[in-house]
Amino acid sequence: MLPQWIIEKKRDGAELDTGEIRGFIAGYTNGSIPDYQMSALAMAIYFNGMTARETADLTVAMMESGKVINPDCIPGTKVDKHSTGGIGDKISIPLAPLVAACGATVPMISGRGLGITGGTLDKLESIPGYRVGLGEEEFFRTLEQVGCSMIGQTAEIAPADKKLYALRDVTATVPSIPLIVSSIMSKKMAEGIDALVLDVKCGSGAFMKDIENARALARGLVDTGVAMGKKVVALITDMNQPLGRTVGNALEIRESLDILEGKGPADSQGLTIELANRMLGTAAMPVRRTVQALLDGSAMEKFKQMVACHGGNLSAGLPVAGNQIPLNAPKSGYVSKADAEALGRASLLLGAGRAKTTDTIDHAVGLSDLKKIGERVEAGEPLCILHSNGHEDEAQLRQLLGSAFEVSAEPVESPPLIIEVIDLNAA
Amino acid sequence: MLPQWIIEKKRDGAELDTGEIRGFIAGYTNGSIPDYQMSALAMAIYFNGMTARETADLTVAMMESGKVINPDCIPGTKVDKHSTGGIGDKISIPLAPLVAACGATVPMISGRGLGITGGTLDKLESIPGYRVGLGEEEFFRTLEQVGCSMIGQTAEIAPADKKLYALRDVTATVPSIPLIVSSIMSKKMAEGIDALVLDVKCGSGAFMKDIENARALARGLVDTGVAMGKKVVALITDMNQPLGRTVGNALEIRESLDILEGKGPADSQGLTIELANRMLGTAAMPVRRTVQALLDGSAMEKFKQMVACHGGNLSAGLPVAGNQIPLNAPKSGYVSKADAEALGRASLLLGAGRAKTTDTIDHAVGLSDLKKIGERVEAGEPLCILHSNGHEDEAQLRQLLGSAFEVSAEPVESPPLIIEVIDLNAA
Repeated sequence: MLPQWIIEKKRDGAELDTGEIRGFIAGYTNGSIPDYQMSALAMAIYFNGMTARETADLTVAMMESGKVINPDCIPGTKVDKHSTGGIGDKISIPLAPLVAACGATVPMISGRGLGITGGTLDKLESIPGYRVGLGEEEFFRTLEQVGCSMIGQTAEIAPADKKLYALRDVTATVPSIPLIVSSIMSKKMAEGIDALVLDVKCGSGAFMKDIENARALARGLVDTGVAMGKKVVALITDMNQPLGRTVGNALEIRESLDILEGKGPADSQGLTIELANRMLGTAAMPVRRTVQALLDGSAMEKFKQMVACHGGNLSAGLPVAGNQIPLNAPKSGYVSKADAEALGRASLLLGAGRAKTTDTIDHAVGLSDLKKIGERVEAGEPLCILHSNGHEDEAQLRQLLGSAFEVSAEPVESPPLIIEVIDLNAA
Repeated sequence: MLPQWIIEKKRDGAELDTGEIRGFIAGYTNGSIPDYQMSALAMAIYFNGMTARETADLTVAMMESGKVINPDCIPGTKVDKHSTGGIGDKISIPLAPLVAACGATVPMISGRGLGITGGTLDKLESIPGYRVGLGEEEFFRTLEQVGCSMIGQTAEIAPADKKLYALRDVTATVPSIPLIVSSIMSKKMAEGIDALVLDVKCGSGAFMKDIENARALARGLVDTGVAMGKKVVALITDMNQPLGRTVGNALEIRESLDILEGKGPADSQGLTIELANRMLGTAAMPVRRTVQALLDGSAMEKFKQMVACHGGNLSAGLPVAGNQIPLNAPKSGYVSKADAEALGRASLLLGAGRAKTTDTIDHAVGLSDLKKIGERVEAGEPLCILHSNGHEDEAQLRQLLGSAFEVSAEPVESPPLIIEVIDLNAA
């Protein structure tokens, strides 16, 4: 069957069969199907979508384009979490050691930040010496010794996804649910895990701006995981304001350490515990130890062990920016807006993120002491503190921050963090 | 502006502006925009279409990617005809000399056959010595001396179309009205003509199977030509049965000579006269000489002069196939079906056409003496005569021909050849 016949079939709204999808992705991976046919198919998928069955087939095909970790190489019950990305989302960092402290194994392959969205690997690299690029043997050993390891994606995992993702970026085919789902799940399912919890972000600072799109993505992710025989649950959580009180790499590591000491902000600490319980529950393990593991130091101990296995040195201290500048509230009242997108852009401007993949980042800069929606603030009290090394365009930063916060005279309710849970087993 | 932003804009259903379209096509022509972005844009155009203004801009951009003939290099009033292609459509061959005999100049750039559709260049090449590849000077000289010349597309004419057409063929983006329109019109408008008549074929043997699609294409062609400041008229003509009584290269030249002698079949002769009148009328020239020019030999004289200028030798004779096999009617009655697609496939099978561009063709083979829908036939009388050199799979041919014709006991009406005329000036 010629590739153009498969493109034509999808273009005309028909369902592709398993062999067609596998053949196309295999051809794309080995180069016999060129980029120009893949991009035409991607655009046809953008317009006509894919059924749950097609999406699962596409995911399997992309997963099988590369190495799939043999679950027998990793001890215990293996469970992971994936977030679709937001502002101040450092949850993976305290979460993986917490879940490990509760007896599960967390083989987490993470990503880097791009645009306003931060990346777990960048945050971990603010710890002096931390290596995200462990070899496979070192990764397995860390998982065996500690119970968790957080590494970067290797070239062997889902190469078809790597190739397709770069192509989608330059052909306006990124925002397609089946393509997003297969990209995420092909990598996660290559980890050899038993269960997965997905945190789908929804709001101004997230890729999915509204609940309908977030729900469609969450549902697509869960359906695909289930079709592949895994236990998968998705949460849809708010990303209209940043998560926690910090945005920026080293600053987020500090907040992660607070969470691991049982004294983090209510929202980020709460979501860490909720996701830990969901991970353990989804993997059919007991959930009663999570809060205790934060209070008794066992989660922190796991984190320290993991960092050590990755060559990191926490006692060397985290980088600190040269200037700490408070952004003061112009009047007293209740915070009614703390816009995630604007604050993400501010952090990017300070140098904490990348506008394009080749940019370098400054681990020290960002925002801290962020006031949350609903909190009381007095005139002249900081809405947040800017950590700067002077990279930014001050006028542009001021403009961004000018519209990021709003303070209301009337009390404002704190919005719920967890908007929806998609759990097919709970139904 | 990045190419992916233009793709995204079209993907989201917005209208591209002139600069965006010109920039994209210029980048595609010079190679700075790769095939994978062009194919994604083509698929977005397939789904979201283009306005008349966008289609005209795309046509101009593709035309200006290459050489545009300076109208001052060609004498007189320049007018051309383009057919979207069908079975037995040899009309260009008697038409160009007929219109030249009536005083207009016809600088016709034609194509080759592909699939079941024949090509004017292939038909002309059944005349021993005929060269379709004249240089520009020779082309201009022939037009000056004779008033008509029929040549093949040169590499300098609309190279963007050549590149895009090949890409569309392998990315399932062929059947898109704005892409078809800009492909046809970018080449025709590069001929430096004043007026154009389009013959949009509709039916089983045509690219457009139904009247709605044929009408949309015809309308798109006329709108684009008018937007480019030319006089353009379109006819929609029937292609459910072959045109005339012959299919196959040398056989169609024979029928063309019959038409030029004023004794061709009613339908092909009639359409030749109708199109000649339309061409002259659209170019604002007198139409009263057309029939006379066939009867007095002046059109034939123009044809002979043109063939001589192209190095062709009509007195050397046309190639004749080794076997003439009649396909006899199984019963007496009225022809109720003479399916253009099936008869086109039969001719292809005999060797008259190309399944792919690199195939070679046999100029002698094909079908002649085709009975037309509505004609009376007696049992044992031929429905057509097969001209074979033994290339074909006989069983496959028999199967094709078995369903090509139907004979009804009841009288059948002859279907109208001209279905619709789209002439914005006549409204």
